[in-house]
Amino acid sequence: MTPEATLARFRDYMVGPTRFMTLLSCFELGVIDSLRERPGMTAAELGDATGAKPEAVEQLLFLLVKEGFIAYDEGSAAYTLAALADVPERDLKRALAYMNMIKVVALRQLFHLTESARTGTLVGLKELYGAEGTLYGAVAEHRDLRESWATLMDTVTANIDPWFFANIDMPSGAQVLDLAGNTGLGAINAHRMKPVPGLRVTVFDLPEKEEECLENFRAHGVEEYCSFIGGDVFDGTPKGFDVVLIKHFLDMFDKASVIEILRSVNGSLEVGGQVNILVPVYPENIEDTDNYNVDFFPAFFIGCTMGQGGPQKLSTYRSWLEECGFTVTRAVTKDPAELPPDVIPVPAVLCATKTD
Amino acid sequence: MTPEATLARFRDYMVGPTRFMTLLSCFELGVIDSLRERPGMTAAELGDATGAKPEAVEQLLFLLVKEGFIAYDEGSAAYTLAALADVPERDLKRALAYMNMIKVVALRQLFHLTESARTGTLVGLKELYGAEGTLYGAVAEHRDLRESWATLMDTVTANIDPWFFANIDMPSGAQVLDLAGNTGLGAINAHRMKPVPGLRVTVFDLPEKEEECLENFRAHGVEEYCSFIGGDVFDGTPKGFDVVLIKHFLDMFDKASVIEILRSVNGSLEVGGQVNILVPVYPENIEDTDNYNVDFFPAFFIGCTMGQGGPQKLSTYRSWLEECGFTVTRAVTKDPAELPPDVIPVPAVLCATKTD
Repeated sequence: MTPEATLARFRDYMVGPTRFMTLLSCFELGVIDSLRERPGMTAAELGDATGAKPEAVEQLLFLLVKEGFIAYDEGSAAYTLAALADVPERDLKRALAYMNMIKVVALRQLFHLTESARTGTLVGLKELYGAEGTLYGAVAEHRDLRESWATLMDTVTANIDPWFFANIDMPSGAQVLDLAGNTGLGAINAHRMKPVPGLRVTVFDLPEKEEECLENFRAHGVEEYCSFIGGDVFDGTPKGFDVVLIKHFLDMFDKASVIEILRSVNGSLEVGGQVNILVPVYPENIEDTDNYNVDFFPAFFIGCTMGQGGPQKLSTYRSWLEECGFTVTRAVTKDPAELPPDVIPVPAVLCATKTD
Repeated sequence: MTPEATLARFRDYMVGPTRFMTLLSCFELGVIDSLRERPGMTAAELGDATGAKPEAVEQLLFLLVKEGFIAYDEGSAAYTLAALADVPERDLKRALAYMNMIKVVALRQLFHLTESARTGTLVGLKELYGAEGTLYGAVAEHRDLRESWATLMDTVTANIDPWFFANIDMPSGAQVLDLAGNTGLGAINAHRMKPVPGLRVTVFDLPEKEEECLENFRAHGVEEYCSFIGGDVFDGTPKGFDVVLIKHFLDMFDKASVIEILRSVNGSLEVGGQVNILVPVYPENIEDTDNYNVDFFPAFFIGCTMGQGGPQKLSTYRSWLEECGFTVTRAVTKDPAELPPDVIPVPAVLCATKTD
């Protein structure tokens, strides 16, 4: 890589924040929706429709014209949707949920990334919201964080749970513990996607999740087969289960805590018990350009959600599982080509059996 | 452009903020300097050297390894500079000045871009600094803004003024007005780069700039040939000059104000008087991928510095000059290939003569 290529790449990085907000702002202003409803509007008409100054609309749309997302006709000074006309609304909605989460949960907080990496605390969250602790505590207190975060996580779960459950074994009569199972969506999905006879799923999470979780069980008619145990995984894992699910969780912690979690799970299982893990992973060859986890998660976990953590390679998780008394029976990374192209996390499933 | 390509491009945009801060944070933490001094350090050693947690260093460096900026050796778990080893320090310093400015002046403020576009005010600057008005007012009050902004502008001026002055005519005995000439750096450069007999340059800017400007004139030994007039261009332009310089200024305003400035300058000149403009321009074909002005300036001016403004195409500035009684005698856009590859602004020079 020549110095010129390196510096050119720096420039790509430098325009990252402005590009991101220019695109999102055109959606937020309603410019895209306006053009979908009425193609051929001028900047003045878009200004009227969106409440923004026509000059500002014109400036922000330059980038979308450059990208070919929008077309501009010099003669009539009118805009129409170009590439954006062909993207299904469902795909746009998913991408916008992610973009909104990045804006609310990450954009401003990232200013403090260096200090967060130094202190292992979320300096940005403290500065902006006065919040100590992690994002997961702050979402309980702050509606804007909660809404952008929960909307995204529900989207992610809906999209990836079918793949996760298709990749794990669920024996008849399985007594399942969903570790850090939040408000029960994963447990409900287990019943929907792995409906084996006698299945019983228990969500284990902080006590304050119990009420909403039980409500969700009732709303989905699974309250007879699901239950909730309140607690903190770092104080120990409940016993009496033969399958443990650990989804969207291990990537939140540094190695020492991941090992602690896996040892705790191992201690609560009988020999032959299973653990099924869903986690984003870095590619084995980190220079693989198809995988964007590396571009996003380190700064996101360290600067915006946990003050620590970040995904690992599949091989790293495998070796940590073995270090903790498990034998890995399955380790599959989702083919990035099977994910919608706007989706950042490339997930993997690891299934393992307690052997000692 | 297929829907898949559009969504993949969205993903590139989504990782813009995290990519930007991950790279900058590796510099801020001192990781790059440490590796330059002592190649082959492990994450643990880099943690010791920089005061950051080794796990955080490892996470943030994944991206730099992906990019080939840094190399990682699996066997020894050691990092060395790769592409970054070959980039001259001077180039890195310039790029980092720009990156720091983007971080301090833009990153957090961009959160409020949509509301800024709606109101024409700097909502982010207000939220973060309690500042009303523009960035140029706020830099006087806030040291962090001032330092990151002034460092960058001095770098930009040093790099682009030689090209600007090489492209303009300066008649002997010219009486020059440097409109919005700030604290005199451009006037000093005029004397250094266009040393015609009898040259006299007067800086016209807000009265609070006078003291520092006159100090700069003395420090550079040009106090005999330079002077300062305090005032606001929107209250009128001083008369008695035959050349007016307008550098880094017209791009700050919407069309109505640019026209007002050009009419005011026209009114203060005699027929035959000249105006020389330095301004970043958008490419005539907005889809030109070499020009990054469109990726940066709309959001930057609307969301971070002015609440309005943004560059225009060269042809637009030409037509606005003609609308205001000037004949354009020269209009040159800098070849982007002649700029260092990390530099965002692609500038142009427009020279025009008052004809009516």
